[in-house]
Amino acid sequence: MFNDFKLMDGRPAYVQVKDYIKELIYKGILRSDQKLPSTREFAALWKLSRNTVITAYRELEDEGLVHSVAGKGSYVSQEVVPSADSARLEWKEMIGDCARTAEELDLMKHGVRWEKGMISFTSIAPDEKLFDLHNVKRAFLDRMSLEGEILLNYGYAKGYKPLIDYLLRYMETKGVDLTGKDLLVTNGFTEGFDLVLSAMGKPHRRVLCENPTHHTAIKLFKMHGMEIKGIGMEEDGFRLGELEQALAQQSFDLAYLIPSYHNPTGIVMSPEKRMEALRLFGHYRIPVIEDGFNEELRYSGSHVAPLIACGGSGNNVVYIGSYSKVLFPGIRVGWVLADRELVDYLESMKRARSIHTSTLDQAVLYQYLHNGNFEKYIKRARNAYKHKYELAVQWCKEHIPYTRLSGDGGLHLFIELNDSLSARDVLAACVRRGVVFTPGDIFHTDGFGANTFRLGFSRVSEGELEKGIATIGETVRQLMREGL
Amino acid sequence: MFNDFKLMDGRPAYVQVKDYIKELIYKGILRSDQKLPSTREFAALWKLSRNTVITAYRELEDEGLVHSVAGKGSYVSQEVVPSADSARLEWKEMIGDCARTAEELDLMKHGVRWEKGMISFTSIAPDEKLFDLHNVKRAFLDRMSLEGEILLNYGYAKGYKPLIDYLLRYMETKGVDLTGKDLLVTNGFTEGFDLVLSAMGKPHRRVLCENPTHHTAIKLFKMHGMEIKGIGMEEDGFRLGELEQALAQQSFDLAYLIPSYHNPTGIVMSPEKRMEALRLFGHYRIPVIEDGFNEELRYSGSHVAPLIACGGSGNNVVYIGSYSKVLFPGIRVGWVLADRELVDYLESMKRARSIHTSTLDQAVLYQYLHNGNFEKYIKRARNAYKHKYELAVQWCKEHIPYTRLSGDGGLHLFIELNDSLSARDVLAACVRRGVVFTPGDIFHTDGFGANTFRLGFSRVSEGELEKGIATIGETVRQLMREGL
Repeated sequence: MFNDFKLMDGRPAYVQVKDYIKELIYKGILRSDQKLPSTREFAALWKLSRNTVITAYRELEDEGLVHSVAGKGSYVSQEVVPSADSARLEWKEMIGDCARTAEELDLMKHGVRWEKGMISFTSIAPDEKLFDLHNVKRAFLDRMSLEGEILLNYGYAKGYKPLIDYLLRYMETKGVDLTGKDLLVTNGFTEGFDLVLSAMGKPHRRVLCENPTHHTAIKLFKMHGMEIKGIGMEEDGFRLGELEQALAQQSFDLAYLIPSYHNPTGIVMSPEKRMEALRLFGHYRIPVIEDGFNEELRYSGSHVAPLIACGGSGNNVVYIGSYSKVLFPGIRVGWVLADRELVDYLESMKRARSIHTSTLDQAVLYQYLHNGNFEKYIKRARNAYKHKYELAVQWCKEHIPYTRLSGDGGLHLFIELNDSLSARDVLAACVRRGVVFTPGDIFHTDGFGANTFRLGFSRVSEGELEKGIATIGETVRQLMREGL
Repeated sequence: MFNDFKLMDGRPAYVQVKDYIKELIYKGILRSDQKLPSTREFAALWKLSRNTVITAYRELEDEGLVHSVAGKGSYVSQEVVPSADSARLEWKEMIGDCARTAEELDLMKHGVRWEKGMISFTSIAPDEKLFDLHNVKRAFLDRMSLEGEILLNYGYAKGYKPLIDYLLRYMETKGVDLTGKDLLVTNGFTEGFDLVLSAMGKPHRRVLCENPTHHTAIKLFKMHGMEIKGIGMEEDGFRLGELEQALAQQSFDLAYLIPSYHNPTGIVMSPEKRMEALRLFGHYRIPVIEDGFNEELRYSGSHVAPLIACGGSGNNVVYIGSYSKVLFPGIRVGWVLADRELVDYLESMKRARSIHTSTLDQAVLYQYLHNGNFEKYIKRARNAYKHKYELAVQWCKEHIPYTRLSGDGGLHLFIELNDSLSARDVLAACVRRGVVFTPGDIFHTDGFGANTFRLGFSRVSEGELEKGIATIGETVRQLMREGL
């Protein structure tokens, strides 16, 4: 006994001694009324100061685990953990449909596996080499000095006031008429999206969206028990004819759109289509959830206003924004901008489910933005990503015999191969050659898209970019030859 | 035009100029093809450097809002925001039951109102005067230097590995046998609780808990459409006889218990009762959600192991912990410790709903804990709260003619008045005298508790503590006299 104690760095020694002895007691290795080594013995054995051991023993006494007998030493008070010997529950049988669906559609569990050293095109997260840590540190220290106590205590469900004001102003610079609107800060896009889905009544249990679309959206629609009607995509956004037909044939509770740098196709919906789509949804009185995904990553072309700005003072658009994809995903901050009456309900939902988003995160982000770092960062990021984007497009054209390539900006391209090819077959062959990407079927609402895949380039180095794309191209050609 | 520009501090001037002109364009004040003032004019008018204005104009060009004509100047490109003139939606009619319940039970909206300057006993949040900001700053800087890029990019749904390991070890020092167990980091207790409720199948739509109980739990049970069966409380926890009867009569999907410093009564469940409760729930195969609320705020008495430790290697306890109440609520970090099969589903739910908890928060908290600050902090906090607790008990005994007072520790007391008195009447009279507290009926599962209230003392100064309690006492006496 007492021979397996190991001191680790950076943590007070007395805490480690205390925890070690606790463990011996809980595991039943030290029994009731058993004598502990004297503080002197223990200190000598482990080359600790005697004070360290004394402090540890005193805290064990405070917690009622140990008692000292004058002139004799310290003793274990009692065996504190009896076992109730409960019956084992079969959790798998006790789980509901929602959790089952979440697990089945969990890409981290059932998606593409890849190992270190492989060239991975699966991520569309920002490149961490671009992060300006120095300015984040400064923002943190600035804000902590100003109101550290506020950052660490409870905040409000709606969000941190300076950040709310900043975001409202930011949305105004995107052309949004804020009359009657309000804003809720959320834990990134995803929580905002789930809150809106949870809050809305869903009498028809049916949603409209682009096909293909964001995988997380498909997952959450299914978790909410909704049937999904996807509208096919063309060069400038989804097909209006298909939309009109769908609207005329069935009733929908809501629509979900990603008008800028659509995930996964990278297509930007044209201004004309935006207006027409809004008119149609307005006519059928269907609320539209607008995913502001990567709106900031425009590399060229003219200004395109988000749907919520196109809507003027109309009110059927619920905009969900996030800085995660363009700034720092580790700081989980997104927002919902919508009509005040809706935000009022969302706020109560948010309070009931997670109280509020971390004040620390919100405050650091606010100060970072306020200091003007975002404008500088986004310029740098846009340049870096634009360069990679152009290289990726060029190399895809050179190497991959695709039938369609889309992506007007953002952090990924979407590729359609010959109908006879399966992207999963290409993937399986590529994995063996050290390259992975995301098969496009997972983004499809109708089981199609077997011949498509998404290529995320944000975190791939330039050298790997060409090598990876060339490998995919060779693999595709080989499979085409074999297929003949 | 251009006469209402106001420069604010701390934000780069060029960003402010850019945003200002954008606003003029979006509001239709600057129209298509209208000429902007020259950069020289604008700079002179607002005493800005000309470079500032040049940078602003250049960015407006990059965004496609403005174009320059060589030798002539800068012009507005086009009116960018057309209005789709959508029909107004009636959100109140489109909202579902879940959001409606959340709004109706939202205490921030429909609870006790109080104004600045009043003595408020409504909060059970920690006293921010106790926060050791210096050590939080140090923890942040330590961690950012070690792995800033990791903190700011995507993490894992299960949580930040060093924190998970720390928390597992922490739970082990509470006597938990970790065999077959796993841990998920959540956005505080509340998200963890909602995740568990969402993941479980609920064939009976019925839950067992203590009566009274945590208001947030009541709210979430109702949002999940569950019927609540509350078991009455006595000195050492809920009444076992009532529990046995309930279990024999009806089927339940799960049970929810707050065994240590129960909210709102402050009662600590005895070790014997813990074992017997576990035995009963095991017999009926009902999972138990254990709320680790304020377990750390023990001021006296012997060690009490959490249910999940009492359960030994049994597995029907789902423990939800949080440092919010004892440490920093602004950092939203809690955890769920449960059987691996369950945590596996919870992880997928978490990923689908909020991707992961802020890595920044988790890392700062981890480093703070690792540095040994928690042990020092909790000692200081315990002393400060214990002192207030003793004063509060003493003054309640002196001033308030109660029939029962409970609270063995923690940050609040619970008081029962004579059956004939209404705590809401007492409250109404107290509000006029500048004192507020929380009426106990909101914690009751059965509509009773009209004669009870909760007194949170953590954020009330010593001077206000006596004054506030004396005011409540006087008010109660007066109402008793009037009632005679």
